[in-house]
This record gives sequence, C-alpha cells and structure tokens, in this order.
Amino acid sequence: MIQIKLPDGTVKEYADDSSALDVAQSIGERLANAVVAAEVDGTVCDAFRPLKDISDSDEISLRLLTERDAEALGVMRHSCAHIMARAVMRLWPGIQLAFGPTLPHGFYYDFGLEHTISEDDFPKIEEEMKKIIKEEEPFERFSLDRDEAVSFVNEMDQHSKAEHIQTGLADHGQLSFYRQGEFVDLCRGPHIPNAGKVKAFKLLSIAGSYWKGDAGNKPLQRLYGTAWFSKKDMKQYLEQVEEAKRRDHRVLGKKLGLFAINPEVGQGLCLWLPKGATIRAVLEDFIKVELTRLGYQPVYSPHIGRVELYETSGHFPYYRDSQFAPLFGHDAGQLVDFWVRKLEEDSLSADDEELFFKSSRVMNCDFEFPPGASREEKLKILKAWEHKHERYLLKPMNCPHHAEMYKSMPRSYRDLPVRLAEFGTVYRHEQTGELNGMLRVRGLTQDDAHIFCTPEQVEEEFRATLELVKYVLASVGLDNFRVQLSLREPGSDKYVGSEENWQHAEDSLRKVLEASGMSYSECEGEAAFYGPKADFMVSDCIGREWQLGTVQLDYNLPERFKLEYTGSDNQPHRPVMIHRAPFGSMERFTGMLIEHFAGAFPLWLAPEQIRVLPVSDKTLDYANEVVAQLRKNGFRVSIDTRSSKVNAKIRDAQLELIPYMFIVGPKEAEQTAVAVRDRIDGDLGPMPLADAIAKLKQEADERLVRQVVESSFAGVEGQTEKANEY
Amino acid sequence: MIQIKLPDGTVKEYADDSSALDVAQSIGERLANAVVAAEVDGTVCDAFRPLKDISDSDEISLRLLTERDAEALGVMRHSCAHIMARAVMRLWPGIQLAFGPTLPHGFYYDFGLEHTISEDDFPKIEEEMKKIIKEEEPFERFSLDRDEAVSFVNEMDQHSKAEHIQTGLADHGQLSFYRQGEFVDLCRGPHIPNAGKVKAFKLLSIAGSYWKGDAGNKPLQRLYGTAWFSKKDMKQYLEQVEEAKRRDHRVLGKKLGLFAINPEVGQGLCLWLPKGATIRAVLEDFIKVELTRLGYQPVYSPHIGRVELYETSGHFPYYRDSQFAPLFGHDAGQLVDFWVRKLEEDSLSADDEELFFKSSRVMNCDFEFPPGASREEKLKILKAWEHKHERYLLKPMNCPHHAEMYKSMPRSYRDLPVRLAEFGTVYRHEQTGELNGMLRVRGLTQDDAHIFCTPEQVEEEFRATLELVKYVLASVGLDNFRVQLSLREPGSDKYVGSEENWQHAEDSLRKVLEASGMSYSECEGEAAFYGPKADFMVSDCIGREWQLGTVQLDYNLPERFKLEYTGSDNQPHRPVMIHRAPFGSMERFTGMLIEHFAGAFPLWLAPEQIRVLPVSDKTLDYANEVVAQLRKNGFRVSIDTRSSKVNAKIRDAQLELIPYMFIVGPKEAEQTAVAVRDRIDGDLGPMPLADAIAKLKQEADERLVRQVVESSFAGVEGQTEKANEY
Repeated sequence: MIQIKLPDGTVKEYADDSSALDVAQSIGERLANAVVAAEVDGTVCDAFRPLKDISDSDEISLRLLTERDAEALGVMRHSCAHIMARAVMRLWPGIQLAFGPTLPHGFYYDFGLEHTISEDDFPKIEEEMKKIIKEEEPFERFSLDRDEAVSFVNEMDQHSKAEHIQTGLADHGQLSFYRQGEFVDLCRGPHIPNAGKVKAFKLLSIAGSYWKGDAGNKPLQRLYGTAWFSKKDMKQYLEQVEEAKRRDHRVLGKKLGLFAINPEVGQGLCLWLPKGATIRAVLEDFIKVELTRLGYQPVYSPHIGRVELYETSGHFPYYRDSQFAPLFGHDAGQLVDFWVRKLEEDSLSADDEELFFKSSRVMNCDFEFPPGASREEKLKILKAWEHKHERYLLKPMNCPHHAEMYKSMPRSYRDLPVRLAEFGTVYRHEQTGELNGMLRVRGLTQDDAHIFCTPEQVEEEFRATLELVKYVLASVGLDNFRVQLSLREPGSDKYVGSEENWQHAEDSLRKVLEASGMSYSECEGEAAFYGPKADFMVSDCIGREWQLGTVQLDYNLPERFKLEYTGSDNQPHRPVMIHRAPFGSMERFTGMLIEHFAGAFPLWLAPEQIRVLPVSDKTLDYANEVVAQLRKNGFRVSIDTRSSKVNAKIRDAQLELIPYMFIVGPKEAEQTAVAVRDRIDGDLGPMPLADAIAKLKQEADERLVRQVVESSFAGVEGQTEKANEY
Repeated sequence: MIQIKLPDGTVKEYADDSSALDVAQSIGERLANAVVAAEVDGTVCDAFRPLKDISDSDEISLRLLTERDAEALGVMRHSCAHIMARAVMRLWPGIQLAFGPTLPHGFYYDFGLEHTISEDDFPKIEEEMKKIIKEEEPFERFSLDRDEAVSFVNEMDQHSKAEHIQTGLADHGQLSFYRQGEFVDLCRGPHIPNAGKVKAFKLLSIAGSYWKGDAGNKPLQRLYGTAWFSKKDMKQYLEQVEEAKRRDHRVLGKKLGLFAINPEVGQGLCLWLPKGATIRAVLEDFIKVELTRLGYQPVYSPHIGRVELYETSGHFPYYRDSQFAPLFGHDAGQLVDFWVRKLEEDSLSADDEELFFKSSRVMNCDFEFPPGASREEKLKILKAWEHKHERYLLKPMNCPHHAEMYKSMPRSYRDLPVRLAEFGTVYRHEQTGELNGMLRVRGLTQDDAHIFCTPEQVEEEFRATLELVKYVLASVGLDNFRVQLSLREPGSDKYVGSEENWQHAEDSLRKVLEASGMSYSECEGEAAFYGPKADFMVSDCIGREWQLGTVQLDYNLPERFKLEYTGSDNQPHRPVMIHRAPFGSMERFTGMLIEHFAGAFPLWLAPEQIRVLPVSDKTLDYANEVVAQLRKNGFRVSIDTRSSKVNAKIRDAQLELIPYMFIVGPKEAEQTAVAVRDRIDGDLGPMPLADAIAKLKQEADERLVRQVVESSFAGVEGQTEKANEY
C-alpha cells in the first residue's frame, strides 16, 4: 500500500499500483473524467502512471490537475503536438521525427519529410487530427534501456532519434517513450490520459528549421499549432493575435511616422522621428516633474567608459556575449584581446601564438615575452599591455557611471539618500533574430536612477519607488498589473551581502507591498545574486502581459566600487544601491504604448493634439488665429489649409488618429467659436473657442485616458512580453 | 628710382635703396620713430630692409605699421624672443638655439642648455634683457646660400641649426639671418628696427620640450614670456590671466560640484554632477521653448552608426585621426582594417601579408585570395569582407542620422523647411594634450539641428537662426560679439554645389547680416568646401573672445545622401541643409559660462537659487513652509537646518554663490515674511513672503543677468578660444 497526501492535508492509503486517475476515481467519477494530469511531489506528471513509479516518498504529495489548472494547458498542448505528428505520419508515411515542444500559447513539431507541407495541407491534417481525437485512444508510457531504445527507434526508421539518444541523451540510463495508437515517440512527457482531452486546436503556420536548430544540420519543416480546453478560449486567443497584428507597433510606427529603423544606421538602432520623439519628450518631461518632487537630482554621463570601469563593476567580461565589441585604441587591441581569451581557454597552439606575436610586431606592439614564458606569464604581460592602452565599451548599464559620480565627493549620512536620475541610453548587442521594432533593440534609453541610501532607508525608498511606478502606469491607463517579488533561494550561499541586510530588505519589501494593497506574488530563488527585486507585470487592453517597470536592490556594486558614507558614528559605512526604472526603457515603453493605444494616443500624449480645419479659404485668417490661440495655450496643433472638402479633411485627421478637430466656418469665425469633433465620440457641436480650450486643457492636464476598450479580451490568458535584461 | 604707393593712394618716387623707414622719414621724424614694421604688397616685413629687396612690383604698396597696428605686436614679440635668447646666451654661454616663435600673447624660445633654468633665474635674465633693450641696438638682416649658411652656423657651434638647414629647409636656396649685436640667429623675420621698441615684457614660465616637438629627440628647455607696447597693456593682460585663473572652470567645477572628469571613466568624458546637470537642463529647457516656437521638431538618434553610414557622409575615413576607433563585430575586424590601410599605402611586405592571412585564419575569417591576386584584387576582397561584417563608429556628427530621418518619408516642397533638432552627444578623439576640462572634451553634446530647405528659403532660415543665436547669447548677458562670415576663395574650384547656389547663398547671408545690424567681418577663402558659414565670436566679461554658436550651409551632404523633395513642378529637387548650434556644445558653453560668471550664476540658471536660513530651531516649521512655498513656485531651494549661527550660514551660502538667502526668525514667522539677502547687494531687509517670491519670479522669468562686471578688462586684446571643429 502507498500513502497519498492530498492538498487539503488528508492522507489516504491506496493499492501499490494506483495512479492519480485511480485516486480521482476513488473520490468520484466526475473528477476522474476531469483529470488532465497530476502534480506529484511538486512535479507535473502523467495522471495515468503508477504513483510508485514516480515517487519513492513514504507519503506521496498529490495534486490532481484539471482544465482549470494553468499547468494542464501545457500538458495538453504537448499531447496535441504528438497528435499532429501522428496525423502527418498517417498522411505522408516516412516522416522523420525530430522534436515537438510546447510554446506559451501552443506547440510545434519539427520533422523531416519529402513532401513540402503548405497551408493548403492544413485542412487535411486538421481533419486527420480530429479523427484521432474523436477516437479518444489513451496515451501510454514505457521505458527502455539505452541499447533497447536505440534498436527500437532504428526499427521504426527514426534514425535521428537514435543519434539523439547516443549523443544528446548520453547520460540517460533509461529512456521513456509515449505510445498513442500506432504512434510512438521518444519523449519525456507528461501527457494527457487520452486524446479526447484536446477540445479545440488549430494549425497556424509552417516554417523551415534545422535538426537541433543548427543551420549546418539537415533542414526540417516546423509546423505550428495552438490548442485550448474550449472553442471559446481559442476564439478569444485567435482574436487577440489578430488584434495584436492590427496594433503592431512596427506597422503603426511607420504609418504614423513615429520611428524608423534603418539598415544604413544599424539594426536595432531606433531613429525617433518627430512624432515619436514628441511622445517620448512628453513622457520624459512628465516624469521629470515627479522626480524633482521626489528629490531626485539630474545627471548626465557619457555613452562610453573604459573597459576597466566595467571590469570593476563586473559587467565585463561577464556579459560580453550580449555587449557590443569593445573599441580598441591600439591597432593590435582586438588581436591581443582575442589572444588573451584563447590563452585563458588554453586553446591556442604554439604556432598560432608565434603567428600572433609576429603580427603584433607588424602592428607596432612593444610587449616582450621572456624566453620560456609560461601561459600565465604571457597572460600577465598581455593584460598589462591591454590596461596601458585605450579600450572603451559602449555602456551596457548606467550604474558604473553613477557609482563614480557618487564617489566624486565625500558623503555623509546627512546627504543620504542620494538619488541620481538620468535618461541614459545603453547599448546591448541582442541577437539579430531577437530584435523586434522598438520592443527589442540594441540601443535603449532607460529612465534610470540610482538611489544610494542607508539600509534603514531601503523601506521608505522602496515604498516611494513603487508608488512612482504605479502613478506612472496609471497616467497611461495601465491600472491592471501585478508585482513579482523575486527573493533569495532559501539555504543557498550564492548571494552577495550580509544575511542581516537581506533579511531586513526582504522583510521591508514584503511589508511595503503588503501595505500598498498591490497584487503581488513572491518568487523564491528568482532574486539576482546581488539583491532582491520587484518587477511590474502589466496587462494591456487586449490582455497581453508586459514586464515593464523594475526596482532592484543591490549590495554588490557598492562593494565593488567601495562606496562609502560617514555615519553619525563618524565611521565609514557602505550604502545600499537601488536601481529603478518606472518605464523600463523609453523604446520599449513607447512601443508598448503604440500597441496598447493602437496608435490612438490620449490627448496629453498625442504628438499632434488638435487639427484646425478651415471650411474654406474665407475662414483661413480666423483658423490661423485659432491655431495661434491654441499654441499660446501649449497645445501641439496643425492646420489643414488644403483646398479639399472639409469631410475629406476630417477623414484624413481621423485616419491620422488626431484626438480633436476644430472645424471653423464663417459662423464660427463670427462667434469666435469652433465646431469640435472628437476622434472617439464624433461631432460635439459648436463651442465658444475659450470653452473648447478650457475643456481640452482640463483633459490634457488630468492626463485623461479615453480609450475604445477591447473588453472582449479581459481575462484571456495573457502573452507575457519579457523585457531584455542582464 | 622706385614707385611707392601709400594707403591713401598717393604714389611717390624714392631712391632705389629706400626702406620703409626712409619713406617714413620723408614724411616726418615722429612717424619714422613710431614705425615698428611695414606691410609691403600685403606682407608684413622689416621696416629697415630696402623695399626693392622685398618686392619687384613696378609700384610697391606700402603700409607703415606702428604700435597702433595689430600686426606690430607680433613682430615686436618675435624680436623680444631674440632678445631673451641673447640674454640667456650672455648669462650661460654654450646655449644651443632651437626655435623662438610668437604666441597669441607672447613668445617662447626653445634651447638646449646644461644649466637648468628655474624661476629663480628670471630676475637675472630680465635684468640682462633690460640692458639689451636700453642699448637700442638695431636688428640687421643678411642672407647666405645653403653651404655658406651651414658653415656659418657650425662656426657658431649651432649644430642643430645646421641640421635644420639640411633637412627642414632643404628646399630653400637662400637663408636669412638676423643679427642684433653679438647675437645672430637663422630666422625668417621680420623684426623691429631696434631693441628699444620693446616697451614692456615679463618672463612667465619655464617648461620642458623637445627638438622639433618630438619626444624621441633631444630634450630642450622652453622659456615663455610676454611683451607689450606699454606697461599698462601688460598689467591689464597679466591681470586678465590672473582673473582667468581665478575663474578656471576646472577648479570652480570641482569646488561647486558641477562636473567631474575621471580617469576610471575616461579622459575627456564629462560626468555632469547634479548641479552642473541642472544648469544644462535649464539651458536645454530654455532653448527647447524657442525651438518649438520657431517650428523645430525634436528627434532622437543613437550614438553609433554603421561605418558605411559615415562612408556615405564622408566623415570616414576622412576624419579618422580625430575619431574614436571603429568597433568591429568580427574578431579579426581590426586586423583586416589595419591590413586594408597598409595595402592602400602599399607599405606591407609579402611576409607581413602572409602573416596577417594566417592570423586571420586562426580568427575564423573565410575570405580567400585567388592565386597571384594583385594588390587591388586583395583590397577588393578584404573590403567586401569588411562590408559584410558589423563595424560601427561612435557618431562624430549628428548630420548623417538626421539625413536618414529626412529620407525616411517622401517630402514635398510644402513640407519644407524641415527642422530636426536634437541634443546629440557626439564623440571625437581629441589628443590627450589638447583636452581641457569641459572646454575641450571627447564627448560633446551639441544643441544641434539640421534645417532642410529650398534654396529660396536659405535667406529666411539664416535670418531666423542668427536671431536665435543672438537671443540665446543675450539670455546669459553675452551681448558683445562679432560674426565671422566665411566665404569662398574667389576663383577656386574646390567647392561643392553650383556657382549659382553659392552666389545666391553668399549674397543672402551678407544681406541678412547687413540688415541685422550685427558687427560682422567677411573672411574670403575660409568657407568649408561644402558651404559658407557664420561663426559667433563672443567676448566674455574679462575680454576673452570665444568661438561659440555656428551656422553652416551645406550643399554636400544632400548630394551624398541623395536627399530630395518634390517641387511644385512635380519634379525631384535637392534641398539645402543648414547645420546650426547656438550654444555650440553644452559642455563648452557651460564651461565658458562657469568662467564668465566665475561660478556665480544668475538667478534663472543657478543650480541652487535660494537657501532658507532659519535663525534657530524655533523657526524651523515656518522655514519649511517657506521652502514648500518656494518649491511650489518652481524655485530650486535648499534649507540650512544646522544648529550653527545664522552668520555662519550666510557665509557658507555666500561661498557657495547662491543668489538669494531668505533668513527667517521669529519676527518673520509672525508676519509671514522673510529677511532677504542678495548675493551681490547684501541685506535687502525684511519683505512679505509673497512680495519676495514675486520679486524673484520676475528676476528669473526675465532671465536678468546681474553681474559684478570686471570693467577693467573692456578693450583688452582678447584671447580667442577656438572651438574644436571638423
């Protein structure tokens, strides 16, 4: 007999070969039918597998997973990938199976096949999948040892799988397989009990790929699909995808003239055109006022720094792969740099070294190696030479510069907190394939600040920062967010900073979040090695979730830069550093806003707020007077002086998503009035000019967000857009 | 007989061997005594030399130069350098003469001497110089042919001079010498008639130097001095130098916490600390309002661009020596770059090439040379490889980015002028020795804008830009300036752009300057090859002249970037580009302002505008209320809550150059008043708080510049501080 502990704490005895399904059955028929998978001792597993095979605990913890549990979706999608592969195999025998993992909203399967699948084949494949699902055949699991497994897959003519067992899975003694009808696949699982659990699915696209993702290997076909527990969920998801396409900031950015990215300048480098730059400037000016109010001080720092600065901070060479290459002042700088790296790896032959030495002579290097110098001695000499010559890095972070600013004068406890704020543009060499308009770039402008404070001040600074982020998000109508609090892994010793400081900091952060009333979740083990952090996960109006603002505590950089302040005890103390960026980056935040608003910015943010439309040339003088009045009141205004009909002018202004149109004909001119047209509500009728100005001033000053809300997306399982981070 | 034409147009005959002095003598004894040098056919010459030797014109143009002519100062200082060298030679025989040129405000002489001269020796040297001057011995000139000249200097044991004749002056057939008493020096001249013309001089400093400035050559001593035509002029100059030292922005910048430059970050890279950053932000916000009013549009661009972008613009490799090295994405990028340069120079041996080829293999290069490839073929292959790989340049200019922005959408004549404005930080690798605090840096933020307009719009855009620069300068009290208009060299064909456009542009600029009433001078031949320009030469309050704002027309970049607009004729046309920067750069302008104001900024610019000084803790609450009121009114305020006496607080605020102090005691608290203390005028007595706020608001809004003017420096021959430029 085995002991099973259920989530409510009850412990029951079951027969030795019981599965989670058996346990469910013992509770009730309906529950058994609803079970999709099981969580055994914290790990998601097959519900149909004997529990004793999964766990050797004396008391096995079991959680039954149904459609209502988030984990169940992934299991079902994984099974659906198998079903899809089975369908393709039925239609085109001879398929070579590669891998079929899940994705956040679906799955794909990579396979080799002579027939090139096109979208025209999708209905046929979907038809076949429906048949399989209808048959409700169970998934079964079995294990083979290595040799058996290789013979088994070779017998099935799945030779790539054999290769994978022999190379990729060389450290596995036993290998698991899943069978569903005639379809068998080497697979880690878990899977659903039977194919009938797939309630809704759709093939999405076909693309090319390579065995193990390496372009040097044989080409494969990758078939993408999505699957859900209800047709309604899937419909909502597909609508969200469609809606997201319609809102694509790259398309809108070009159409509305907001920004450009241009291979002549460089991939991932954003050119902010006047309209996009205006939005950014309005956002920056808005937050600057708040920063002044909160006691931040502005600073400016250069966009490069000596490589040594980043060696001090630890950003080099640690993050080297995601940085732009250094810039070497000496002609042989990059050669020596390569040489050093290879020597460190000990992967340079004596001949190659000789070659490099001679090349370095041609490039006027002056270092010498004593006869018979060891690798270590050579490294020392080369590194000393490197330190002597100018080497700069495009700054990947602003913190080292701000740390140097903190250090530029003596600090007393009375001066703390010191809050240095800068819209600092940093550069990171993201992979070409990962670049995505403004959302994933190589040059990003952080609305960055570093707070240097005493450990006692952490709580209050954290509180004020959280409030700031919340305020900033609210200003653009983003009220739907949760905070993810990343804490230490209990018991681990990989963290910098004293136990006391960490405990105090984590307690403070938790306390502040608790008191704030914000929705938050704790993620143990997710903290950076240098300190705990809080990330804002924000839902946009179509239900997608974005990782935006961040607040991070740092015990590491103050140590590395040997930052100090004189305490009231007249002794030197080390401050705590807080990194924080409410927007995250101006590029990403603006890109997200374009999609959130579908390009239709609220009045206070719109690059062009009002367009004045004279009905004819006769009212041109008055129209210009209206423009002058509006400009005097601080509005961003344009005038459409074309000879076209006023309806055409309205249509164009509406297409350009301008919040308000002021139409002026002879009657309006006579009465110093304007006929106001609202982008959302349409014609508001005539209004005295002064009243119209007052109305719009109020709307802008209040930063009112009036949006055609896509309420149908509320509650959809959100796509989470993660920020790029170190 | 020779024909001499005087500046008033009269032509007279003189004896064949007449000198300028003889001509002066024929006019009058007093004039002859006043003559220092002569300008013969436009070139400054010895007044004592027969005119026939200088010019073979049929009619020689002669201008007599006296102390009142600017050119005379340089001649006299050059002679004073000889007198100084003669004095040193008398005191320490065995001196090896090198070179003794003039400087803007004095002169130096480089020489080799066993005795190491120290400042203690200055009185002795000055005494000897005075003796020489008192003797009033004449300067004499004579020529020798090459061989005679070498023997002659060798006879005098001046072997360096012999070397110089043989190498540096290898193309000179005849060599001129100047004798003054026993002192003879190889010298191009010209010189004063006799030593008595030196009226005031002073030795300033001693430094080390090298023969021909090359640290590989033998070391020399460099003795600096200054000389003037009157003791009064010299006194004023020395006071200006002292005053400039007192105002040194590097010293004040550190003392007042405005900025820091730090070898950890990099030389020439400015860290703007909060107080300096506040000044910069206030200046930026101020000009942004003007830019909006004038129809400029904000943009932002990245700080790097692909090398190809700068090849298109022509900034690379042309300005390579003053740029930071490119940043090469491929490990072998810099090696290949070096290789290409050497191949282009044809200065790489076959062995070295073989070496580079093999090294490039180790670094995973994939290019191949066909057997027997020529230098040109190899260059083509290497360059093609380079273009395939990522190479970026830190941007040295913003214009290429703005040109790409202009190009990012189609433009019609109706859209022009397009005015793109950006505070763009650019990077240039100035020589270490040329770096100077904020005035000469490696990272500079231009208040840059590029105007794209039709040729017909140039006049109006130029006018508006000039007015903007004037307005900006006036806002910081810099009303004393002249405009330097750089035009084409007549008859030269080195210029880009049509004759018609140039003529039109030059006429427009001249017309606008004429109408503006600004003082301006034309400099023919000083225009860049791509267009005429206007520079603002601004005098600060101690009489130094600074090259600040600039406006440049450009016919070249629109051509290189193939910029277009559709004209009213529906045909494509090329726009004109105007580069302009009223401040020049934020670093240089702020550095200049620190010196101009000696750190005591006017109210509107001061980083800390008002400090509230509670007399004791009893008035702390009221003091905090005053601070809150002031902040609400937009002032930058601090409060001194220390328990010190109010007089100590006043002294500290005064030392920190804070414009206003509001002192609050029990009486003020009772009456909601403040005792106002002005940094300049001292105690202004008690004032109702509302009145004090209103008074200061007016002063700040009007951008009033109240300065303790150093009137004693008005009219001093100014030092001109040139901007670093491409």
